[in-house]
Amino acid sequence: MDDLSRFAIHTATTRSWPIEGAIAEYAAAGVKGVTVWREALDGRDTREIGNRIRDRGMAVVSLCRGGVFAADTEAARSSALDENRRCLDQAAALGAPIVVLVCGAFPGQELEESRRQIEEALFALVPHAKAAGVKLAVEPLHPMYADSRSAINTMGQARTICERIDSPWLGVAVDVYHTWWDDRLEAEIGLCGRSLRLFAFHVSDWMTPTCDLLEDRGLMGDGCIPIRKIREWMEEAGFRGFNEVEIFSRRHWASDQGQFLAAIRTAYIEHV
Amino acid sequence: MDDLSRFAIHTATTRSWPIEGAIAEYAAAGVKGVTVWREALDGRDTREIGNRIRDRGMAVVSLCRGGVFAADTEAARSSALDENRRCLDQAAALGAPIVVLVCGAFPGQELEESRRQIEEALFALVPHAKAAGVKLAVEPLHPMYADSRSAINTMGQARTICERIDSPWLGVAVDVYHTWWDDRLEAEIGLCGRSLRLFAFHVSDWMTPTCDLLEDRGLMGDGCIPIRKIREWMEEAGFRGFNEVEIFSRRHWASDQGQFLAAIRTAYIEHV
Repeated sequence: MDDLSRFAIHTATTRSWPIEGAIAEYAAAGVKGVTVWREALDGRDTREIGNRIRDRGMAVVSLCRGGVFAADTEAARSSALDENRRCLDQAAALGAPIVVLVCGAFPGQELEESRRQIEEALFALVPHAKAAGVKLAVEPLHPMYADSRSAINTMGQARTICERIDSPWLGVAVDVYHTWWDDRLEAEIGLCGRSLRLFAFHVSDWMTPTCDLLEDRGLMGDGCIPIRKIREWMEEAGFRGFNEVEIFSRRHWASDQGQFLAAIRTAYIEHV
Repeated sequence: MDDLSRFAIHTATTRSWPIEGAIAEYAAAGVKGVTVWREALDGRDTREIGNRIRDRGMAVVSLCRGGVFAADTEAARSSALDENRRCLDQAAALGAPIVVLVCGAFPGQELEESRRQIEEALFALVPHAKAAGVKLAVEPLHPMYADSRSAINTMGQARTICERIDSPWLGVAVDVYHTWWDDRLEAEIGLCGRSLRLFAFHVSDWMTPTCDLLEDRGLMGDGCIPIRKIREWMEEAGFRGFNEVEIFSRRHWASDQGQFLAAIRTAYIEHV
């Protein structure tokens, strides 16, 4: 099945390419959607980049990333909220319907407290999301990031927060890399789907061995994640969005990026 | 509180010491219990090592490790069962009341299948445990090891398997390094305690950043795990066993092991 109709890529996957070059390369490779990382917009006109993506026949899928809500001072938490409002406005300018959130954790602060702060921040942010017309997608991060990147580490936690706040502007981003190990994954995808909270789907693979906690993700098919099966769970639960390739890998970044993109396309067709 | 009455160490924590030397050093440092790693017994008389530990006024806490049940062939799974029976017999000879199990995962084999194989193996092994008079403790491993080391990654999974098999010879080993991130941890410790399934408690700390998935654990207090709080949950749930220091760290292994042991003792008093 050479169906590329939902084939999307994160700009961070080929981060050495300036975004203008990435857009041209993606379009030529048959990519249909682009998730833009904020770093890629530095020094650019956000609207122009959004138009450039659409002019090439691709959709802007999401803006990555907002979040980082947990902090040890009231001032830092308030400043994070301001930054997230700017992020929502930037997404609106880009024409991105979603901002993906990495919710944060503060080393040494108890996870319970970080989780409370995150929920408080999401509650405070929802009105701005609604006003901007941009959805917020909470991405549960792998438990190996619970110390410093996200205190939200399971689908169950993300869903529970969304249910408590209960806004159509708040949902979940499912990343196979972060969630594949969870024996509750299929059930949680189903529960999120029922309440229309499946906002995004990210794919990559888990390498054996994994040599770096952050930047050793694999190309789909090179690792052990049953990606297609998880995609089926997503679709059975009603998800109709893009399958976004998000690979952080020093090894792949150091390789020829044109060849890497071609390999991504092949891996997408074979394994997603 | 300088209470060292439940202070135990894994021989793997100071693995460059031959076990005879480790036993002498531990006893001199006020250690009250020793968990023996099988590698440390190579070429030794198992009974003699058990007696040597007891003669120094310490208890043999556990034998580490059995497990590795998941495999892609029937022959490999059967051979793993044989190996685990030998491990139970060795624990009996050592006078260790518990064998700790790292249950295994097979890269590329779906987690569901590995979990099924693990449960089947545990069920098959319980009669031998009973005959040997040695308990089996399932240790849930951090989700970052789900690819290759253990398909059992949460307290909830370990407890559920124990409940289904329902033998007094089968319980759970709680390691703060593997479980601290889990928002269900306190509740699961309580549930395991109610059914007398809390068999062991391992402590170390999570470093920020963590530079290696296997061998970059921290000394208690050097990381972000609320160790004392988790210990309180264990004791409230009825646990009365040892607090076992299990630190895998290339950094600490490369340091003077006498000084490392002294630092462990201080960290135990201050943070466990």
